Amino acid sequence: MNRSTPFLDELCARVKPLDEEAIAAARARQASLTKPMGSLGRLEALSVQLAGIAGRSLPRVDRKAVVVLAGDHGVAAEGVSAYPPEVTAQMVLNFLGGGAAVNVLARQAGARVVVVDVGVAGDLPAHPDLVPAKVARGTASFLRGPAMSREQAAQAIAAGAGVVAAEAGRGLDLLATGEMGIGNTTPASAIAAVYTGLPVAQVTGRGTGVDDAGLARKVEVIEAGLALHRPDPDDPLGVLAAVGGFEIGAIAGVCLAAAAHRVPVVVDGFISAAGALIAAALCPAARPYMIASHLSVEQGHGPLWQALGLEPLLALDLRLGEGSGAVLAMHLVEAACRILGEMATFEDAGVSGQDN
Amino acid sequence: MNRSTPFLDELCARVKPLDEEAIAAARARQASLTKPMGSLGRLEALSVQLAGIAGRSLPRVDRKAVVVLAGDHGVAAEGVSAYPPEVTAQMVLNFLGGGAAVNVLARQAGARVVVVDVGVAGDLPAHPDLVPAKVARGTASFLRGPAMSREQAAQAIAAGAGVVAAEAGRGLDLLATGEMGIGNTTPASAIAAVYTGLPVAQVTGRGTGVDDAGLARKVEVIEAGLALHRPDPDDPLGVLAAVGGFEIGAIAGVCLAAAAHRVPVVVDGFISAAGALIAAALCPAARPYMIASHLSVEQGHGPLWQALGLEPLLALDLRLGEGSGAVLAMHLVEAACRILGEMATFEDAGVSGQDN
Repeated sequence: MNRSTPFLDELCARVKPLDEEAIAAARARQASLTKPMGSLGRLEALSVQLAGIAGRSLPRVDRKAVVVLAGDHGVAAEGVSAYPPEVTAQMVLNFLGGGAAVNVLARQAGARVVVVDVGVAGDLPAHPDLVPAKVARGTASFLRGPAMSREQAAQAIAAGAGVVAAEAGRGLDLLATGEMGIGNTTPASAIAAVYTGLPVAQVTGRGTGVDDAGLARKVEVIEAGLALHRPDPDDPLGVLAAVGGFEIGAIAGVCLAAAAHRVPVVVDGFISAAGALIAAALCPAARPYMIASHLSVEQGHGPLWQALGLEPLLALDLRLGEGSGAVLAMHLVEAACRILGEMATFEDAGVSGQDN
Repeated sequence: MNRSTPFLDELCARVKPLDEEAIAAARARQASLTKPMGSLGRLEALSVQLAGIAGRSLPRVDRKAVVVLAGDHGVAAEGVSAYPPEVTAQMVLNFLGGGAAVNVLARQAGARVVVVDVGVAGDLPAHPDLVPAKVARGTASFLRGPAMSREQAAQAIAAGAGVVAAEAGRGLDLLATGEMGIGNTTPASAIAAVYTGLPVAQVTGRGTGVDDAGLARKVEVIEAGLALHRPDPDDPLGVLAAVGGFEIGAIAGVCLAAAAHRVPVVVDGFISAAGALIAAALCPAARPYMIASHLSVEQGHGPLWQALGLEPLLALDLRLGEGSGAVLAMHLVEAACRILGEMATFEDAGVSGQDN
């Protein structure tokens, strides 16, 4: 595996396999709870995964955070998005003001919102909930050259990892990824094409809502970019540098650091899944720490989950990003955890078991 | 429509169409919120439905209850279930003790649990959370005769409706159905066959986990029961009386009364959907007040949702009942409501709109 930097090598080396003893204990406990075995379906499997991640038979998910990584994209100038690039900074201010969808959903889920400027083009004010980690003022257009240098790609990953280290220090049981970056379904589709091997048109959707002409343009731009850079899937840092963006790199860093800290990470939408795929390409051992939140309407999302070997929990026709779907899925993750920890056993409750 | 009792006629007459003005206002507000139009997918449609149900543009879902209807089934003696019938009463005690899955999930969702004995075979102690409304000590086996009389069917529906009236009096914004009754997938499959017109084998599953021989026996029993009673789908009370059970009738009553009180009702699993279908057959105007919680592994569940014209929110391979899936879906209903009420508008937040 070509990881290219000592920091990344060290981060990936800290990712250990899930704890088999905790997994076995959680499985045994599930079998003793007052319900037919398996009747809580995916919640049961999820509870066992959480036990393996935390390294204890009764995990907890009290302390939650959603990390929203924001960055701009040079490729947005190529007519691939329905919104103007200044919306990235405007939405960061909306996150800080508490008025965006992710804020509303995070309040409901009891998750703190951590916003990270990893590459917004505009200036942003200092704010207690904003982590300044700007790699550059937006990426370059990958239609003209690489979106960023390899050094910047590594720096973006390190920025995401650094946020998780700080959050882990504050106490953290469950993490969700989120992002904001006008134009960022374009690099995400490029990454999806590289890792799934599917034609660009099959993994490219309308993002925030481009029309037919915009979609055709988007596919053309991605095809031209991939023809120009010929990114090698065995060199994830090179893929990230070629097509970007900074927030996608930071999402990869969040996923890697979550695994290193043994914290489950709920991966949000299409862009987050592209970041998670970069993380898994850098460090396959990080994959079992990931939870796929939802299947969006963006048509490349399903192939990305498949490439990751993950099955999404929700399918609500979302296409917002920000971490909205991941925060919604946190309720299900918490439910899985509570079932394991709080339900009565057949013995406790004096309930008869199965006949056959 | 053959409703057969003045009480049912009066209950159904109280069900009014959704409020079109509130629906229009909620739609307009969704379009003003800081996100691409439609990007929150099914949550947006759900918020509009909630507005129409409550009759106001900004509905609330603070006060929640799950009503767990319990009853026994004469047909359980015919070898159709993996568990012995005494488990119904044992599980009611588990609900009252707070140790069952529905209790754990309801605590998480902030919903109160109301347990109703509408026909448990055994004696149950008085308990502040238990509503005594026993129609009889279990139904008769529908293989030998009708599961109950028409009077008892009406009484079961009235019992469910009465619980909703009492809960509405305590303050109620969102309701979920749940049930417990060893053997009750058997009457639910019979009802599904009557209303979908599908062969019994196509709407009959393993319930809590019968083996192949048990499943074959279950199909035989249902086919024999339907051949004996020839229930008429245009006579929902007759269908209920023929195959049962008391808790299924009570679920129908809960759905009808929820609609009459303009409270959204999240319908749980296969048995709850059968009850909801009886309600919709009695009073088609009640259907828009229903929210389909999840698609279970019970193979008749999908056809029941289709017959109701409802699309489930979750698909987590659940097959427990109790209200577990409905309570999980409450998080999504609450999310939809909060998005509508709490998100900033483009104007509030100074965010630029869409280019095209």
